[in-house]
Amino acid sequence: MKVKVSRKAHFNAAHRLFHAQWTDEQNAKVFGKCAYPNYHGHNYELIASVTGEVDPITGFVMNVSELAAIIKAEVEEPLDHRNLNLDVPYFATVNPTAENIAIFIWQVIKKRLPLDLELEVVLYETPRNFVTYTGE
Amino acid sequence: MKVKVSRKAHFNAAHRLFHAQWTDEQNAKVFGKCAYPNYHGHNYELIASVTGEVDPITGFVMNVSELAAIIKAEVEEPLDHRNLNLDVPYFATVNPTAENIAIFIWQVIKKRLPLDLELEVVLYETPRNFVTYTGE
Amino acid sequence: MKVKVSRKAHFNAAHRLFHAQWTDEQNAKVFGKCAYPNYHGHNYELIASVTGEVDPITGFVMNVSELAAIIKAEVEEPLDHRNLNLDVPYFATVNPTAENIAIFIWQVIKKRLPLDLELEVVLYETPRNFVTYTGE
Amino acid sequence: MKVKVSRKAHFNAAHRLFHAQWTDEQNAKVFGKCAYPNYHGHNYELIASVTGEVDPITGFVMNVSELAAIIKAEVEEPLDHRNLNLDVPYFATVNPTAENIAIFIWQVIKKRLPLDLELEVVLYETPRNFVTYTGE
Amino acid sequence: MKVKVSRKAHFNAAHRLFHAQWTDEQNAKVFGKCAYPNYHGHNYELIASVTGEVDPITGFVMNVSELAAIIKAEVEEPLDHRNLNLDVPYFATVNPTAENIAIFIWQVIKKRLPLDLELEVVLYETPRNFVTYTGE
Amino acid sequence: MKVKVSRKAHFNAAHRLFHAQWTDEQNAKVFGKCAYPNYHGHNYELIASVTGEVDPITGFVMNVSELAAIIKAEVEEPLDHRNLNLDVPYFATVNPTAENIAIFIWQVIKKRLPLDLELEVVLYETPRNFVTYTGE
Repeated sequence: MKVKVSRKAHFNAAHRLFHAQWTDEQNAKVFGKCAYPNYHGHNYELIASVTGEVDPITGFVMNVSELAAIIKAEVEEPLDHRNLNLDVPYFATVNPTAENIAIFIWQVIKKRLPLDLELEVVLYETPRNFVTYTGE
Repeated sequence: MKVKVSRKAHFNAAHRLFHAQWTDEQNAKVFGKCAYPNYHGHNYELIASVTGEVDPITGFVMNVSELAAIIKAEVEEPLDHRNLNLDVPYFATVNPTAENIAIFIWQVIKKRLPLDLELEVVLYETPRNFVTYTGE
Repeated sequence: MKVKVSRKAHFNAAHRLFHAQWTDEQNAKVFGKCAYPNYHGHNYELIASVTGEVDPITGFVMNVSELAAIIKAEVEEPLDHRNLNLDVPYFATVNPTAENIAIFIWQVIKKRLPLDLELEVVLYETPRNFVTYTGE
Repeated sequence: MKVKVSRKAHFNAAHRLFHAQWTDEQNAKVFGKCAYPNYHGHNYELIASVTGEVDPITGFVMNVSELAAIIKAEVEEPLDHRNLNLDVPYFATVNPTAENIAIFIWQVIKKRLPLDLELEVVLYETPRNFVTYTGE
Repeated sequence: MKVKVSRKAHFNAAHRLFHAQWTDEQNAKVFGKCAYPNYHGHNYELIASVTGEVDPITGFVMNVSELAAIIKAEVEEPLDHRNLNLDVPYFATVNPTAENIAIFIWQVIKKRLPLDLELEVVLYETPRNFVTYTGE
Repeated sequence: MKVKVSRKAHFNAAHRLFHAQWTDEQNAKVFGKCAYPNYHGHNYELIASVTGEVDPITGFVMNVSELAAIIKAEVEEPLDHRNLNLDVPYFATVNPTAENIAIFIWQVIKKRLPLDLELEVVLYETPRNFVTYTGE
């Protein structure tokens, strides 16, 4: 029997959306307020979900405290209270949209999981805007 | 890489559930309090999600401000602060259950989206009752 | 030792805001979309709080199941799934704004409580608009 | 047209996670605080969702009041305010992890549903830990 | 300028409400399901708020990380994943109602605070039932 | 009869906490991660509440759409998607703690309100940390 186990986490970060080869006008047209040069920020809420068989001895798909530890090490430590554009090398050349942050988080968690577990990442940029990435 | 991008919105509306060819007793039996003749209402919460490839330049599947504008024009303008039965032609002959409202919303948003984007609509009638429609 | 005990409840209702002696233009100017003639509605969320001494035997200020029963009889039964303007006599001549609904709820609960208990009513009309009345 | 209809419910229960054939040290290592011998507890939040065709007459996939009644009889009555390990026979030999409770709930609701309706169960053990089971 | 600074925390615990000198019938009549002998449990949500002058140098009333550390040491460590009746000496003779737990929490936090700070404790037993204690 | 009318709003901003005359070590000791030099950010949630007499004609203490317009002009326009330290002159010399931001917001809203209305500002920096200022 396969169950999906979900864990919520959060981190606070600053970011700015822009394309380095565009003019300010182009960036403002596409990214609006998100292109303001001095950065703004969010309380990012993360839901990481792993799907797999329930272990008949423990009753766990995966010990949620292990999942929480992976999230802490791979996501919260490098991203919390950071400026995504300036402090996180991955986003030096990748625009830190919610989509791209979710893909980054999926990659750093996935490489720490047993191979038979599927991973889904939901990332809330605000309570009204969020994205979902499943590795497809 | 395909990501699902979700946007929350809301509208307040009155409605009444009933079948025009049924007696009051039949309507009361099936629809309970929802059949009361003078209407009641809800704060409808909507989550519209589009799934597609992430644009490598912008980092967006779709600019969420465009999605918000479509929701505003197609859903909030015609439904907000309205009586669904009396003010919205679609529901003159279709019972405005959460299921049918979700299908209506899916149709009016879908026709405004690029063809390669999939759409999912989640509609909360109350915090405890909600429905999901994906076009199947 | 005085403690405040709070209980959440909810009801769904239709209403319309308008002043009977005003023109449609005047009503539209003051009440905006809330004056639309065919009614709209809300999921009203209610928090009723009573403050008093903790009983040294039970450890209760008031048994919250009794408070829930009073709310059910005095608020949910008469208001849930109703049209406030048409179905509730109190609002035949009183505009059913959040302020006036909160005052009505405070009055009908207060008369059922022991005299030494203070009452506070918080009423959410939407998740973003709410009012508080304490009997002052 | 297929729609998923979701209903939230809740129950409060005590439980303890442990494996009867393990030592206290083994149980503490795997289950941490959840293995404390005198039990702890949770406000479990449940979302049960049924997916099926919308009835063209009623506009319902299933009357949500029937779904709520099934949840009340099969889940809330036997589990609410209970000690899962001691009071619920199913968990005499099955560890009451969120995974296993969700599977139990899925089974007791599924057998009450029409065969053509799919069922999904989401169970929140805490606001930050939850699981999803779809019968796979 | 006086500001109130609030910090949310949570703990999961089992408890049972009953009066030792009452019969089972008396306890069932007053406490209902909460008197079941094998305990049940809750995800308690706590909001501890301190009110005082804003320090002109730091801009803090109190460093919220210090408040969080006090809550961890005085509330979460002794109560989390515990059986309040059996594991917490204070509740050996005091009924662990939400009222009494809030008073206990107020007392253990207050004695760790500078004397010029006022304290308010809000304790959610469930999302619909909560209490507030300010030391009066 | 006096009622308190509350309106929620939100804005996203970047900030950094530090004291200009302190060393990096001093700032790190007091402000922890909040002192990181490249800024971080938050989704600030604001609840502005005005208390006053209910107008017997309109049933309003204050038209909530006017309150929303004041919040938009005085708070959202100058703060949303901004770097509080760099873009908002008030915080050039005032540390942008939640306490100080709440005082700033109270001042800019209060000067736009009729004199007989009391104002309370609640500002959430994160879902777990928030402050309240009433002008005392």
